[in-house]
Amino acid sequence: MPPKKTRRIGEFELIARHLAPLARDVPGALGLTDDAAWIDGGPAQQWVVTSDALVEGVHFLPDDPPGTIAAKSLRVNLSDLAAKGAVPRFYLMDLVLPKDRGEPWIKAFCAGLAADQAEFGARLIGGDTTSTPGPLTIAITALGQVESGKMLQRSRARAGDDVYVSGTIGDAALGLIVLRGGLNRLGSANRKELTRRYRLPEPRTALGPALVGLAHASIDVSDGLVADLGHVCETSGLAAAIEEGSVPLSPPAALAVREHPAMMSSVLTGGDDYEILFTAPRSAAKAVAALARKLDLPLTRIGEMREGKGIAVLRPDGSVREIERTGWQHF
Amino acid sequence: MPPKKTRRIGEFELIARHLAPLARDVPGALGLTDDAAWIDGGPAQQWVVTSDALVEGVHFLPDDPPGTIAAKSLRVNLSDLAAKGAVPRFYLMDLVLPKDRGEPWIKAFCAGLAADQAEFGARLIGGDTTSTPGPLTIAITALGQVESGKMLQRSRARAGDDVYVSGTIGDAALGLIVLRGGLNRLGSANRKELTRRYRLPEPRTALGPALVGLAHASIDVSDGLVADLGHVCETSGLAAAIEEGSVPLSPPAALAVREHPAMMSSVLTGGDDYEILFTAPRSAAKAVAALARKLDLPLTRIGEMREGKGIAVLRPDGSVREIERTGWQHF
Repeated sequence: MPPKKTRRIGEFELIARHLAPLARDVPGALGLTDDAAWIDGGPAQQWVVTSDALVEGVHFLPDDPPGTIAAKSLRVNLSDLAAKGAVPRFYLMDLVLPKDRGEPWIKAFCAGLAADQAEFGARLIGGDTTSTPGPLTIAITALGQVESGKMLQRSRARAGDDVYVSGTIGDAALGLIVLRGGLNRLGSANRKELTRRYRLPEPRTALGPALVGLAHASIDVSDGLVADLGHVCETSGLAAAIEEGSVPLSPPAALAVREHPAMMSSVLTGGDDYEILFTAPRSAAKAVAALARKLDLPLTRIGEMREGKGIAVLRPDGSVREIERTGWQHF
Repeated sequence: MPPKKTRRIGEFELIARHLAPLARDVPGALGLTDDAAWIDGGPAQQWVVTSDALVEGVHFLPDDPPGTIAAKSLRVNLSDLAAKGAVPRFYLMDLVLPKDRGEPWIKAFCAGLAADQAEFGARLIGGDTTSTPGPLTIAITALGQVESGKMLQRSRARAGDDVYVSGTIGDAALGLIVLRGGLNRLGSANRKELTRRYRLPEPRTALGPALVGLAHASIDVSDGLVADLGHVCETSGLAAAIEEGSVPLSPPAALAVREHPAMMSSVLTGGDDYEILFTAPRSAAKAVAALARKLDLPLTRIGEMREGKGIAVLRPDGSVREIERTGWQHF
């Protein structure tokens, strides 16, 4: 069988036609005609930088729509910026492309980026395009700004802090189970909602900067709720106790857990939520509630930080849940 | 045949044991224990950012030593910073690893980075590690500093400027030919010297910042001498004429061209030189010569910028060389 024909597109053509429009209006990006970009920050601002790579078959499925792959690649980085309290400004993208991706694919991919740029305010300022004999790989480095010295960190939790999460937890993990053929009695609307949450994170870019001065510690939930809370515990030198019954679930996730109680383990450890987990002193409770109303985004207290080590997940009956798997590890 | 056994290493172990030491002494890197880093620049400085990804089998050979692969991945980015006049400060690395790389490989890879950090002054401040079913891929984003508004650009050449290159041209392209079994009458010392230049670029990090205020346009020679001069011509809206006989060759390259005159085409178009090509006004000639002496690095005038379009390569006999292939394109 002959290989599938695709219209091949030159590297410079790809940059000029599809990527350069994403860099419009950024003077330092030089229209992507140079090897580097310059960026300017105000004197009272610090740059916050983060980088994540996504690999086909590892972080997204080969048949995910190109615009969704693009958006996910950008959003996982915007989520990191948000959890650090930074306002997204720029990104660089290394696009490592299998040769079978023709121009229609690239066009749809870049349309996904353009829509996200409009929504989240980050702009492409550089990067690289190269071919690969392997899977599609997208490496993005994102740059945001925060008031000097105010970047939110994992390590700043204090004993007695309340632990909060934004939005709902577990949808993405259940969405992946749906995509693999599971949970097929949930009904198609519920299944679709869960897979949408797996495919497309909603980085909490409005919440993150609003937590500066309010939260002690902050992290985005990407490895899984328990694993990411574990990162906060380890770097802060503390323990945490969370109440399973307080973990906020979407209606489809609540239904899935009701029908399959074993799914609660996936909710707690599954990852890819891209919500923000943060800790704040009890005295901030009113301000957190006001912020939730202002942003129209649930901010739910799920437990507290304690002296000690480790995480206790308390079931509604008061027993402690054993956590077998504490989040995604790549190796 | 069972798969080759390698000692597997956990992601967090990899970061803590091998990557975190590379981030020591950078307060904003937080010991690589968070999802982002903060960076501070002085008020009179701009950040220059650049990103390049290298793929096994495309940019380096599968059996290249891990330390050399690491150094090359970093150096191609440092070369971009140098050509923009920036002093290297930090980098983020997305390390996309096939599962067969065990800890000895990772240790050797990171030793290569450590040696280069010591030599060039850039420090790891973040990134990502992930597995891939495909080839090893390394995406690095490098950040450097330049006096505000002084970043060197491709597009600033002026008609009448002299065109200079640093070091010698063509060694890497000939080195790749050697690695593919060619040029085998050159003698082993010469062959080794050429392959060394292919495997390991020498980013001109001392030269680049010294060109600020002296050069009009600047670019690093990565796509090939003619292609990169072409980028300067296109973005500056000018033509160029270079004299083939002026292009500086190392002794092994000069020997290769003498024995195989057709190799001159590879020298001019082959790429991977990572020298700096810059243009400067005739009035800067003495300052350029003084800089070459100060840095103990040849800076050779190879031609000039002219009004018009295109590049003329003049042979020693005055005829114009036809250029068939104007540099590496990935698609």
